[in-house]
Amino acid sequence: MIKDAIAGHFYTVGIGPGDPGLLTLDAVKVIESADVIVAPRSEIAKSSLALDVVQQYIPEKTDVIEHVYPMVRDPEVASANWAKISTRVGELLEQGLSVAHITLGDPMIYSTAHYLLEGFPAMVTADRIHVIPGISAFQKAIALGQVTATIQNDRMLLMPASKLEEVEKALQNCETLVLYKAGKGFNKLCELLERYNLAASAMAVFYAGIEGREVVYKSLEGLKDVEPPGYMATVVIRCGHRQWESKNS
Amino acid sequence: MIKDAIAGHFYTVGIGPGDPGLLTLDAVKVIESADVIVAPRSEIAKSSLALDVVQQYIPEKTDVIEHVYPMVRDPEVASANWAKISTRVGELLEQGLSVAHITLGDPMIYSTAHYLLEGFPAMVTADRIHVIPGISAFQKAIALGQVTATIQNDRMLLMPASKLEEVEKALQNCETLVLYKAGKGFNKLCELLERYNLAASAMAVFYAGIEGREVVYKSLEGLKDVEPPGYMATVVIRCGHRQWESKNS
Repeated sequence: MIKDAIAGHFYTVGIGPGDPGLLTLDAVKVIESADVIVAPRSEIAKSSLALDVVQQYIPEKTDVIEHVYPMVRDPEVASANWAKISTRVGELLEQGLSVAHITLGDPMIYSTAHYLLEGFPAMVTADRIHVIPGISAFQKAIALGQVTATIQNDRMLLMPASKLEEVEKALQNCETLVLYKAGKGFNKLCELLERYNLAASAMAVFYAGIEGREVVYKSLEGLKDVEPPGYMATVVIRCGHRQWESKNS
Repeated sequence: MIKDAIAGHFYTVGIGPGDPGLLTLDAVKVIESADVIVAPRSEIAKSSLALDVVQQYIPEKTDVIEHVYPMVRDPEVASANWAKISTRVGELLEQGLSVAHITLGDPMIYSTAHYLLEGFPAMVTADRIHVIPGISAFQKAIALGQVTATIQNDRMLLMPASKLEEVEKALQNCETLVLYKAGKGFNKLCELLERYNLAASAMAVFYAGIEGREVVYKSLEGLKDVEPPGYMATVVIRCGHRQWESKNS
């Protein structure tokens, strides 16, 4: 169990899908004790959702830096923006402050932590960096759906839903397929799953863990023409099951 | 955020990889307030590791049932054993007690929760079942290794390491491959990864999150002839990276 945040150390803290109950004890400890909190927020977001989730644990004296990043897929533009905050965090650490970066979900799974870590100056060595894992959105989805994602020899594949032909291929390479960002092409995805007779074995959660906005579909049957309730969605498809082969372990 | 466990309700609680700091607030709340705790333990384990992790949160008055299950891969034998505890839990719920099943990692990812849920009598309806997600061992592994598992269009595949030819195939179907139960054939796996020039992009954690036993290898280079430090291992292989394709989102 983590003690208080250490002077001159950096923490990237996964805060889970949005429900404060899914914060870990270590996450709370770091957020309560860090000198500075860094909360990234995309330029299209009105406020930092991550900050809302942990606000109750941030002491009044703590400095909070909201870092606004652009929604571009140009690696150079993105890197230049993240380099600024990485440099600033490096300076704060050099001054002997402890810094906690908060991120929804898990810092190592589709998170902004990567960009921040990438841009750190050389003085921020690995022994001064701590990663606090967090509950990822798909875990909240399978919990809500009461869906066993894997058992015995099952394989589980996680990927963004952006390309339907990639999704179709992936159905062959796993027993459970988890699709992130599945809100945008939701109807076409439902159509594909009906074609494979998998719509009844699939579920979707929109705005998982976010109070007042969460919508759960326990099956995707008959949804190919229904307007989805938003764009932030995780879809979980049970494509099959791989049993143990031998009778004795 | 969860309030106290509700009378007549069942909770399957993921308690994370073994480090109490990775318990969620909801997990602690349920463990502190449930009338009965069910802790499964395989017949080869001397004590329940899950129980050790949460012991400090279990009030003295709470009933703790240790359920011993056989290490067999015969579905019939396994089912018959689990049916007993499922029935017993059903009776406790019927009496108006709240019951929490504790499991390492996440209840929906390679966990015993599946067997317990499967055998519930019909009276235990879905609205009386609650799944509390937990940090899975692979999340502790990537946190320790400071390995970005996925970013942008990356795919991540999770599977048991049991069959090397399946592992070899999987290297082609994802950008990050997570292998559970990787201790047994560890040297042959390292050999395979050297053949694919992936040993330096792979890491292993033995006994992730378990105090005093955790061993981290940040690279698997030069390990094909080295005796592994145990059998409980998670291996994470970075096989590649898929960038965004368009310049604007």
